[in-house]
Amino acid sequence: MNAKREAVREQILRTAADLFRHRGYRATTLDHIAARLGMSKASLYAYFRAKEEMLAAISRRTIEEFTRELGLVLRSDLSPEDKLRRVVRTHVRSVIANRSFLTVFFSEEANLPARLARALAAQKDRYDKAVESVVVDGVKRGVFRDVPPRLVVFGLLGMLNWLYKWYDPRGRWGAEEISTTFLSLIEDGLRRRQRGGPALARRVTRLQRELRTFARALDG
Amino acid sequence: MNAKREAVREQILRTAADLFRHRGYRATTLDHIAARLGMSKASLYAYFRAKEEMLAAISRRTIEEFTRELGLVLRSDLSPEDKLRRVVRTHVRSVIANRSFLTVFFSEEANLPARLARALAAQKDRYDKAVESVVVDGVKRGVFRDVPPRLVVFGLLGMLNWLYKWYDPRGRWGAEEISTTFLSLIEDGLRRRQRGGPALARRVTRLQRELRTFARALDG
Repeated sequence: MNAKREAVREQILRTAADLFRHRGYRATTLDHIAARLGMSKASLYAYFRAKEEMLAAISRRTIEEFTRELGLVLRSDLSPEDKLRRVVRTHVRSVIANRSFLTVFFSEEANLPARLARALAAQKDRYDKAVESVVVDGVKRGVFRDVPPRLVVFGLLGMLNWLYKWYDPRGRWGAEEISTTFLSLIEDGLRRRQRGGPALARRVTRLQRELRTFARALDG
Repeated sequence: MNAKREAVREQILRTAADLFRHRGYRATTLDHIAARLGMSKASLYAYFRAKEEMLAAISRRTIEEFTRELGLVLRSDLSPEDKLRRVVRTHVRSVIANRSFLTVFFSEEANLPARLARALAAQKDRYDKAVESVVVDGVKRGVFRDVPPRLVVFGLLGMLNWLYKWYDPRGRWGAEEISTTFLSLIEDGLRRRQRGGPALARRVTRLQRELRTFARALDG
């Protein structure tokens, strides 16, 4: 496929995903999509012959984007902690960049043809298992606590995926601050520990607050 | 409403939610729902005159169940830590017991009448703020670390809500084990700590590393 055609295809999928997200998949017609794109239906047909094909392409594209990014992290020789950090930061960025795709992907599973739904479920499962392997490795090396890795991954991915519901591009938090806060929660939890003296703990807390201010400045 | 009528109404809503979940809201008709219930359409009409009314009732019922349970916890005189524990355990149980309702609630927002969608969004927002008040209280009393409470709540509720996607009643984990693992993760994080100084030293190291990342980002 040449670059121009690829770009038009991507534009069509983004527009379709936006419409599916706001109107619902079933309520959206090819006419709506063509009109929003300022394209004739005949031109649209040269790319997709049916709405179902768009939904399938959106779903495939979404899972493939996440899988590709994860593959890069897994093949690196980072430590389990650093791998987990990279996974979290990459996942947060991908959710934010693909909110419409994800809304469709997470909401329209019942509308996918059974064979495709099964193929996508298998790909999702491989993604979960790959993240799980990072946690398992960290537990083995003694850097992570011994908690059930599969449940940790479900919790972690829930935390990250849920962003598609609440993230607001005009809101006060950007990818950087969200990742930093979530990582801090995942790594160290919410409970304060008094060790090494309260004065030192307070200094660290103050530093963390300053870092968040920087993060906000970077996002804004 | 008498008890018999209330029970039939609940049965209708559960059946409708199951069908909406598996076939999709738009693809489900009143005929499907009546057939699954073994009811005539005329009898069904005595409870709901349209599919939209069922969707509205399902959405209202779902948010009200969560809000009622949360109210009980908030009005108790438990410590912030114990309140958070109760919120997590109650939320996990409610998600598991209401998976079909939640799937519809989370997937069909685009199909709700605008006024109802706004009312439900406001109720969801009050729920989030109520959980946030527990975190804020814990930070003030020094039992929780000073992380942005709103982001913590989004992360926490994402972790808990996501259960509606992966929970399997025939699977290996029940509400109790899921709650315990999630609480352990939320309270203490994944990272193993050595007693005494090294934990703090690692936090400082991490802060330094993050500062370098910020510095690089600012330069680039």
